[in-house]
Amino acid sequence: MQHSNTPPVLNARVTVSPTSAEPESHRYDVLIGPRGLDELPRLLKDLVPASRYALISDRNVASLYGAHVAGLMADAGLVVDRFDFPAGEANKNREVWSDLSDRMLDARYGRDSAVLALGGGVTGDLAGFVAATYMRGLPLVQLPTTVLAMIDSSVGGKTGVDTPGGKNLIGAFLQPRLVLADTDTLRTLPEAEIRAGLAEAIKHGAIADRDYFEWIAGSVELLLGLDPAALVRLIGRSVEIKAGVVGADEREHGLRKTLNFGHTIGHAIEAQSRFSLLHGEAIAIGMVVEAEIGEALGVTASGTAERIRQTLTAFGLPVAVPADFATTATLDLTRADKKARAGRVEYALLEDIGVTSPGTGAYGIAVDDETAAEALVRCRRGAAEVSR
Amino acid sequence: MQHSNTPPVLNARVTVSPTSAEPESHRYDVLIGPRGLDELPRLLKDLVPASRYALISDRNVASLYGAHVAGLMADAGLVVDRFDFPAGEANKNREVWSDLSDRMLDARYGRDSAVLALGGGVTGDLAGFVAATYMRGLPLVQLPTTVLAMIDSSVGGKTGVDTPGGKNLIGAFLQPRLVLADTDTLRTLPEAEIRAGLAEAIKHGAIADRDYFEWIAGSVELLLGLDPAALVRLIGRSVEIKAGVVGADEREHGLRKTLNFGHTIGHAIEAQSRFSLLHGEAIAIGMVVEAEIGEALGVTASGTAERIRQTLTAFGLPVAVPADFATTATLDLTRADKKARAGRVEYALLEDIGVTSPGTGAYGIAVDDETAAEALVRCRRGAAEVSR
Repeated sequence: MQHSNTPPVLNARVTVSPTSAEPESHRYDVLIGPRGLDELPRLLKDLVPASRYALISDRNVASLYGAHVAGLMADAGLVVDRFDFPAGEANKNREVWSDLSDRMLDARYGRDSAVLALGGGVTGDLAGFVAATYMRGLPLVQLPTTVLAMIDSSVGGKTGVDTPGGKNLIGAFLQPRLVLADTDTLRTLPEAEIRAGLAEAIKHGAIADRDYFEWIAGSVELLLGLDPAALVRLIGRSVEIKAGVVGADEREHGLRKTLNFGHTIGHAIEAQSRFSLLHGEAIAIGMVVEAEIGEALGVTASGTAERIRQTLTAFGLPVAVPADFATTATLDLTRADKKARAGRVEYALLEDIGVTSPGTGAYGIAVDDETAAEALVRCRRGAAEVSR
Repeated sequence: MQHSNTPPVLNARVTVSPTSAEPESHRYDVLIGPRGLDELPRLLKDLVPASRYALISDRNVASLYGAHVAGLMADAGLVVDRFDFPAGEANKNREVWSDLSDRMLDARYGRDSAVLALGGGVTGDLAGFVAATYMRGLPLVQLPTTVLAMIDSSVGGKTGVDTPGGKNLIGAFLQPRLVLADTDTLRTLPEAEIRAGLAEAIKHGAIADRDYFEWIAGSVELLLGLDPAALVRLIGRSVEIKAGVVGADEREHGLRKTLNFGHTIGHAIEAQSRFSLLHGEAIAIGMVVEAEIGEALGVTASGTAERIRQTLTAFGLPVAVPADFATTATLDLTRADKKARAGRVEYALLEDIGVTSPGTGAYGIAVDDETAAEALVRCRRGAAEVSR
């Protein structure tokens, strides 16, 4: 991690270089630290000059930070309008995307404007898809206000919306010009969302860095207590891991699949819960199940599922499939996922904590339904006490 | 123009290299000639291998060529499904885009599939936007069946849909993997659409190549008679010009603006006609008005508007603003255009036939409303006889 020397209130900077197939101009910085939003006007003037800025956020975040951010920008002489939408994943859809686009068109936003996504992953994905498709693309700045958005969704260029057919099935790649993670905004985040965000950080350790995994496992109190230094270390290292993977493979044909660890089952469980489980909660369950699948196949070192289960439990995250979730329904939902190639369901599986299996060379391992079903049953709530 | 040596029935090949900012892998060929569709299965296998192909076309083109193309593909062992939508620019919207995407999702199209756009500009833009946004991007093949699509909309990577706020305001850049222009498909095209397509070819001559302009002007009978050799020459040279401009500047920040000659006024007139004028017809009028604007400003050589007017008239294209079109309404519509930057309306103006004015260095010249209004009035139907 490079320590920034220019913006004194920002403690960490990670430079993200999208794939070798992308031009160098697509490189961008992720700046992390307390009071980060205070630096926004200066950073915009330097890095993302525009005639107008569309500040997009959901109504919850808008009521907490919208006036503050817009005020900072206006005081610095920038032209900004606020565009709010109703909070919640249910609103990350084509209708709200259309509505935001139409409101910007009505306000005569031109090509020389830019989009700021202030909020969590839903806002980043939705506002990012607005930016990607408004007049075929406006510059995008991510201002994540959740752990999950800071360490995951704001980095990597994925934008999109959900459809009745599934999550994130419609979207586009658009690299942000800047990601600015103000760790102070996490103070207003519900604790369940803090925990859920940490599940993705645990995933980063699990797929790429055992030492990082163990540091997280040993820092439960610091992290749940929002210790500033611990947060900066966590976000910085997670972004480094994600950026390293994404930089090597922006379009998900290979290495990027390692980031899907926990997500094939996790997305299915999340859909099956009708989104009553948070994304990170579903992914926590997904990691345990997929580690069990890996152990059953002999791909993953014995004991890995248990170590992941212990760590997630220490953070108060769920590790068992809800008892009333039918296994066949879960499996059907894995097949609707984007990761289903030509009818087979591919998983990203670990070899061990910190090491993803290269699989057949593209980090995807085809898993038969029987093995997946058995792991799901073993990880079911109630069943867990029996099997352990 | 390189003459192809492998596919014997295709007479011309133009290789398009999107901007230096794009990776080389985005390079693609435009193949032009009679019986081109017969080569499609072989070309797909070589250049765009996929587990399934979504063949998207409007119902008119589907009824003419859908079964034929799908049959050729199936005979060659390719998996293809046909997705039709109601014909017409009015259907190039977000609702039809959603519907096509949902039908592909219902049919379980995965990331290892590809989209074929068989039809005119509406189909290319709409199916292209489906491809650009389906699971964040599928490979796209353009199979243009109109002059306009062959020489213009299928090349350059622009995809998108219209909104109540204007044309092409929502969209994305996606370079096709292949463009295959079967000139035989033009035999079923209404003559008005042939003429309208030729308006864009005349524009290509006007902005970049005087000799080409004069060759078109001297080839009225050959071109309207669909002489195969003349068509291949026309499409090939127009694609070369467009590709040359696009390759130098994919994102329209500079040179690409030269392609907008005739389009600032043209798009406004097209909208004002509520799309009863074909795009090429509106652009024909737009070129005359914008040449008049250029002459009034002293940017464009005297006599240029008249030469363009003569040439368009020889092809049976309109050259006068309809008498009942209010000038203020036309001007208001130019401001809604994407090309309005920070409230000013910029035009791409000629210096002479074959030469675009570099303007302030970015091929955009700010024109005041009074000058534009005077030119519109001068070019009005009825007024023309008086002023000339």
